[in-house]
Formats: sequence, C-alpha cells, structure tokens
Amino acid sequence: MRLLQALSKFAASKSLIRNVRAAFSQTPLTSDTYKVERGNYGEIASEDISIFKDIVGCSHVVTDPSDLEGNNIDWLKTVRGQSKLMVKPKSTKEVSEILKHCNERNLAVCPQGGNTGLVGGSVPVFDEVILSTQRMNKIISIDPISGVLVCQAGCILETANKDLAGHGLIAPLDLGAKGSCHLGGNISTNAGGLRLLRYGSLRGTVLGVEAVLSDGAVLDCLSTLRKDNTGYDLKQLMIGSEGTLGVVTALSILCPQKPASVNVAFLGVESFEKVLKIQQCARKDLGEILSAVEFMDSECMRNVTHHLNMTNPIADCPFYILIETSGSNASHDEEKLGRFLEEVMDAGIADDGTLATDYTKMEAIWGLRERMAEAMLHDGYNFKYDFSLPTDKMYDLVRASREHLKGICKSVVGYGHLGDGNLHLNITCEKYSRDIHSAVEPFVYEWTSRHKGSVSAEHGLGFKKRQYMAYTKSKEEIMMMKKIKQLFDPKGILNPYKMLPDNF
Amino acid sequence: MRLLQALSKFAASKSLIRNVRAAFSQTPLTSDTYKVERGNYGEIASEDISIFKDIVGCSHVVTDPSDLEGNNIDWLKTVRGQSKLMVKPKSTKEVSEILKHCNERNLAVCPQGGNTGLVGGSVPVFDEVILSTQRMNKIISIDPISGVLVCQAGCILETANKDLAGHGLIAPLDLGAKGSCHLGGNISTNAGGLRLLRYGSLRGTVLGVEAVLSDGAVLDCLSTLRKDNTGYDLKQLMIGSEGTLGVVTALSILCPQKPASVNVAFLGVESFEKVLKIQQCARKDLGEILSAVEFMDSECMRNVTHHLNMTNPIADCPFYILIETSGSNASHDEEKLGRFLEEVMDAGIADDGTLATDYTKMEAIWGLRERMAEAMLHDGYNFKYDFSLPTDKMYDLVRASREHLKGICKSVVGYGHLGDGNLHLNITCEKYSRDIHSAVEPFVYEWTSRHKGSVSAEHGLGFKKRQYMAYTKSKEEIMMMKKIKQLFDPKGILNPYKMLPDNF
Repeated sequence: MRLLQALSKFAASKSLIRNVRAAFSQTPLTSDTYKVERGNYGEIASEDISIFKDIVGCSHVVTDPSDLEGNNIDWLKTVRGQSKLMVKPKSTKEVSEILKHCNERNLAVCPQGGNTGLVGGSVPVFDEVILSTQRMNKIISIDPISGVLVCQAGCILETANKDLAGHGLIAPLDLGAKGSCHLGGNISTNAGGLRLLRYGSLRGTVLGVEAVLSDGAVLDCLSTLRKDNTGYDLKQLMIGSEGTLGVVTALSILCPQKPASVNVAFLGVESFEKVLKIQQCARKDLGEILSAVEFMDSECMRNVTHHLNMTNPIADCPFYILIETSGSNASHDEEKLGRFLEEVMDAGIADDGTLATDYTKMEAIWGLRERMAEAMLHDGYNFKYDFSLPTDKMYDLVRASREHLKGICKSVVGYGHLGDGNLHLNITCEKYSRDIHSAVEPFVYEWTSRHKGSVSAEHGLGFKKRQYMAYTKSKEEIMMMKKIKQLFDPKGILNPYKMLPDNF
Repeated sequence: MRLLQALSKFAASKSLIRNVRAAFSQTPLTSDTYKVERGNYGEIASEDISIFKDIVGCSHVVTDPSDLEGNNIDWLKTVRGQSKLMVKPKSTKEVSEILKHCNERNLAVCPQGGNTGLVGGSVPVFDEVILSTQRMNKIISIDPISGVLVCQAGCILETANKDLAGHGLIAPLDLGAKGSCHLGGNISTNAGGLRLLRYGSLRGTVLGVEAVLSDGAVLDCLSTLRKDNTGYDLKQLMIGSEGTLGVVTALSILCPQKPASVNVAFLGVESFEKVLKIQQCARKDLGEILSAVEFMDSECMRNVTHHLNMTNPIADCPFYILIETSGSNASHDEEKLGRFLEEVMDAGIADDGTLATDYTKMEAIWGLRERMAEAMLHDGYNFKYDFSLPTDKMYDLVRASREHLKGICKSVVGYGHLGDGNLHLNITCEKYSRDIHSAVEPFVYEWTSRHKGSVSAEHGLGFKKRQYMAYTKSKEEIMMMKKIKQLFDPKGILNPYKMLPDNF
C-alpha cells in the first residue's frame, strides 16, 4: 500500500509519467481484452434518471461523460468502464431507495468509494450505475473511552484520522492512499496496510457494519460492542466482499491510542535465514512495541539506489530488514530497541545496522522501502505481484523465479511486509512480450498455490485478478461463495464481473 | 469465563454443592420445560451403529447409557439430553464419513468438544448423535517465527498452551475452562476470555479453519497466512456458529509472545464516572502493556468479603478497578504502572490503591474478582447475566435494575470486563419465584436492547438463550442467518435446537 504513496510522490516527475504510460500501453484498457461479456441487465432509461434525481436531487446525478471520466478509470489506469450514470446519495435511506429501484429494474450497480483500489474492483466494466459514497462523509461519533469511531462509509481515512488525533487516537489501519480512500471502501476490500502487524486486521478491529443489500433492505449490524455472540457475524461477509454482497453505508471501528514514540532500525544481513532470525529476536525483545518488520534483498537496494539516486545508509549486504517500534514511552522504547540491536549485532546475526530516532532519518530509511515499487518501474517492463506466503517460504519464490527466468528477465526482486508474510515479487524485462509473460505466469501463481500461499494478500481480486482465485481457494470454497452471492444478490446486480471467477 | 475457574475451586466445598443444587432445582433439566419438540429426524438403527463402528472402530462408538451420562448433561448441570450414541472420530476423514452417513439417513448430530459451554450448546437435546472431538487432539505444527499454531479441533487449550510455552508463545485466549475446553469448541463459540482486551478476538487471531459440512464435504480454509484477500472469508461463518453450520476439525491461530512481566494494580474510586476516567488514563499511560481492566461495585465487595471471608486490601469505596499489565521488560512495566498510579492518585481520581508485582499478591487481588460469581451463589437464588454494553452505559443497567427491583430482590450487583464492555449483572433473592423472575425478565433484556447492548457477550446463545436473539439482532439479520443455515445445512441435522430462535 505504501506503493500508492510512493507513486503519488513520483507522479510529479515526467520520467515516471512516461514510464507509467509505457507500462500501461502494454495493458488493455477495455473489457474486450479481458474477454468479458455484458450480463443480461436492463439498460438505463430516462425514467430511471428521473427517479434517481427524485431520490438524491438533480445535482447529485451525473450523466455528463467528461464528468464521469475519472470514475470510469481505475487509479492505475489499467481498466476503463463505460458507465453513463453516477448517483451520489447522502444517506443510507437514499442508498436503499436507489438499490431497490435498480433491483426491480435489473440495473447493474458498481459501488465506488475513493476509487484507489489496485485490482479494478471499484470501476464499472460496462454501463453499470456508479453508486458513489463521496457525499456520505459524516463522522457520527468518536468515543474516547472505548476508542470507537462510528462514521458513514464515505469518510476519507486521513480526515477520520485527523479527528481521531484530537482524542489521542489513531485509525487501526494506514495506507498510502489515505488521502483519498474511503473507510467503507477499506472495509469492502479488507484493506491491510502498514499497521496490520501491530493492530491486526479489520476482521478484528471493525465492530460494526451497516450495509444495504441488493433489494434495498438495510442490514444493520452497526454495533459498537467489542463482544457480541448472538448469532452468525454477518458483518464479516461484508468485510472484503468488494461490494458484491451489499453496499457498506456506515461502520464502527476500534481505534488504538496514538503512540507517543516511534523509532526505526535498519539492518543488513547475509541470508534470508538470518532475516527470519532477526524477526524472531524482534518479536522477543521488542514484544508489544514492534509495529513493522519489512525486508528487501540486495537486488532491491541496487535498483532503488541506482534508479532513484538514493543512499544505502549501511554496508552492502545480501538482505536488509527494517524494524519499526511504536510505544507510549520514548525512553523505554529506545532502551528496548538499543538492547535488541546490541543482541543481533553481538550474536553476528546482523552484519551492519543503523537506528533512527528523529523524523528526518526515519523518513530516509522508510523511503528506501516505500520507493521500491517506483524504482522497479525504471528498470523496464514490470510484472508486479502481491503474494502472501508462509514466512519461511517467502524468499524461496524469489529464488525459484530467478532460476526459472534466468536469461529471460532482467531483475527478479523480493521485498515486502515480512511481519505479515506479504511478499511483493517484482520481475522486470527490457520490453513486454507474450513469451516472457508466459514464462512468468502461471509459474508464479502455481508456485504460490503449491506452497499454500495467497495470490492476493491485501489488494483483493476485483476485476483483474478474479480468474486466479482457484490458485488459492478450493473448488468447494468457490462453489460456496457463489451460493452465498446468489443468496444475497439473486439477480447479481451488485458489482458484477468482480471477485468471483467464471467457470465454476 | 473466570467464573468457571472460580466455580471449580469452590466445588470442593460442600456448601457450594448444596447451593448449586438448590439453584439447579429451580432450573428445568429436560427439553420439555423449554417447550421444544423433537425435529423430524430419523431414529438410530443397529445398521447405523455398525456403519459408525466401521468408520471409527468398535471401541470409539459409545452406547452404554452410563458412559453417556456426562455427555448428555452440560457443565452447569442445567440441561439434559437423551442421546443414546456417541461417536469419537480421530480424523477429518472419519468426521466426513460420519456426517455423510447422518445426512443421508437424516440423523441429527450434536458436535461436542470439552463440553464446558455455559448455554447448553454442546449437549444434545433429544437423541442426537454426539460427535465428540476428544480423540482429535493432535498438534500439527508450531512455527516460532510466524507464531502460528496449527492443530486438530480436539486439542485442549491448556495442553496447547504448554506446547506453545516451549516456543516462547502463548495462546491468544485464556479461559477458566482451559483445562478441559477444546480449541475447536473455542472457535465454534467464539470464546472471549481474559486476553481479549490485549490480543483481540478470535475473529482476528484465527487464521484458518477446516470444517466438515452437513453432507460430509470438507471445507478446507486451513490457511496459516496472516493476509488473504481472495474471496469471502468463509471461516468467519464457522467462528461463533456453535456447530450449526459445520463441524470444526482443525484450525490455525496466531499466537503472541509470552510476556516476561505481569503486574496488577487495584484501585478504589467514588463513582462509575471515575472508573471510566481511570480506564482512559490506563489506556494513555499503559498503552501497549495494558492487558486487563476489570471492575466491581461495593455490593460485590460486600458479598465477596462477607460470604468468602476474603479481605479488601484497600479502603472501602463505592467502586473498585483492577488493572493488569503484561510486557516484555519488567522494569519498564513497573515504571509505567508506578507513574500511572501516581497520576490517578494525585489527581484525586482514585481514593486508594495497591500494586502487586509478586505472584501471591496478584493472585489474592485477582481472587476478589474471580470469586465474585461464587460469592453471589451464597447470597441466595441467583439470576446471572452476561451482557455487552457501551462502556459508558454499563453501570446504568445495574442502577436501573436496582431501582426497578427495590424491595423485591436482595442484591443487585455489577462487575465484569470493563475493558471489553462486558457486564456480569447478578441479581439475588431469598428464594426463586415466578413473580420475581417476571420482575427481572424481560426487564433486563429490554433495557439492554434499548441501549444497543448484546444479551450474550461471550457465552453464545446455545440452547438456553436462543429465544432471546431478537433482543440484540434485527429481524432482517435473523432472517438472513436462517437462510445461511438453510444453505449450509439443508436438512438441519447440525446441532438442532441451538442458536437460532424459533418463530422467525
């Protein structure tokens, strides 16, 4: 997710724009190339538009093609839809009325939050009605005692975070896209991000969800309770279902205390086995203050220093590991981190290292990790993957890919959230070709599948990755998902062509 | 859940046994009194028994009524089933074969783990086949790097915890029943317990579940990945569904580091408002090391000191609050706790307090809280409730009940997991009567419902509480749950008469 942050910084430079365009030129922009056919949905008529105007007001129904341009294209500009209509409700009641009408008229709907998703899940494919949550941006309550935030789905993460800071709280998730992404969208994609290692996933921190179902019924699971064992936890079906089961309209989420102290250590080690040993030491010595464990290999460092003129603050090593701590007492945290560093250096686990306690140095170290994605775009055509793997297997995939693609590709690099078992595998070549593509895929998917990994750790499947679900999920699971989809949305009007694969 | 621990200590004394019997004598023991009729299931024939013997081996099919006695009665001895058959499989494959046969023959099944549940969810009601997981007790793997434990459903929590300790880990949950409860049962009931404040609920810590569905199909969601966004999270439907959607056969769970240091503070304050202020200070000052925030009122203290001859270690106060810390560095933890105590004493928020850093003193303080449930059994006939409420409303229910029941009841006391918003409301009277019962209920349920609380915070609904679901869940939610039940278990053979209410 830091990729987004890195890319937006980088977008200012012309060279990126050129490179990104070059990459995109390899990537098809319409539904045709993805071999998808329009479902048997109704077509929007002028009567429908009148009804939508009655529901939300004339100025909140958008039909001008140029005004819809940004809503028809995903953030990465890899897919383009053909919607001619966006409706912008203000309340749950309005969402309910819109969906009730769409369901009766069999009109397909694409729910859209900040449209910052990376798998084309938040843009229409054909002429779906775009249901935007951008006007649903009210903070309903913040309880400083329980730490619970309740808000509408269209609240922007960064805005909510600012309000939370006034109460000494922070959101339990942090993403590069925080300036644009909506909390409702975060829930719909089960966003991971930078704080997952410390505060856990949204499965645990989201306490309540209000969602509107395909027929307009409001499913009110907007509890603010930390414990509730009265029946099946229906909100879990809304978390991570990418708008295919319901439209999230409001949510409540448990927010931790804002840490008083943050520190970053950067270490160099000679093998991935030692990377794992450091992680283990960090868990033991830093325990409750550990907030990030990131890693990158020497190929990453070579790319980031070469392409972006950045400086490696320590000696050249085969692997690098970034450790962040966040705690409530600065001197305690520094003492713990100091002792941890001493231990790993004395035991010869780390070969070199540096500790940053001031903001500037921390930013410089984080920059090496954050700008990795950007650096790889400079290296040629870039195949990017977001895999989840058992931690001890994470780097084996990089090694296997390097071996498999010897002489075919330029760089094969591995970096990512070691603490979460989330590997960003990047493969570059001078120029895209179908042959290289076939050498890379399905090899990387098959390898990941064989080692019980996930082909999407945190980005979801959306439109672009849905056909790969079976690399991670069994036939029984996919069949059950399709039955659940049928139960919640019998006509299939909610975010069609997303998440669920065909041919099952 | 500490209730269980407290009760088992207490069970040694004759006076408890007398009291418990007195209480139980008020409580009906068979399905008749709960006005439940046997579903239209098949009856077990000798051919079925032969088939079960073929699947699991002769010695693992139990038909002797005296051997089944303990499996037909719940731990609290409040409900009694009439099962004539228990099958004890060793593997997922055997569970699958058993369920396949039961589904074909339309035989009802009651999955049973350690049978420590408090709502009659784990015992049969009529002649269901008891499917026991007691032989499925294999630890499959413990990964010290990722902290992930994978095991069969029948692993006992305490046994798993001992194995984890060898790797410097602890289970993310702790219950009084740990010596008997199965991890599969913990997942099926979404057990809360003592570590929830610190490590979060099972919704976040359980990474994978393998379950067998009603028709024998194996739903393999036994991932060990921390992140996986490839489709709906089906395992969440298994967590907390009390065996009504599938039988959990294996699981993987993320385990935290074992803390090196534990401390307990006990404070007295003059109002519930100050209790809340202390909680807020604790969150701020103790941050990442805070592991429990429990409270009790002066009526609780009066009962526990009077009935159990225990000593209040501080001055008499209207409210008491217990704060526990767990961390990786003893001197840091003690310093944080010392400063927090100084702050709340100096600001006049707490009137008196004591700090325990050694095991004996900590046990004595925890004892006051843990033995509350036991103390109340000495006070007369005891109505016990396990409510979840917004933290700032928690004590209002105790006040409202006291006002409402003035002159009718003996004691109305409130204590519980303040940090989780979990109130244990206890009401006692000299002798049970229907009139008193009608004064207490539905008053307490209605009040909880009006304030958006939950009528079951952590125990689930099981057999005894299922008709109260609508006090917490909407009609739409209940209807959706029934549809999901129908989808997963069309014949309704899995744990019938449990969790889902009639009349919806």
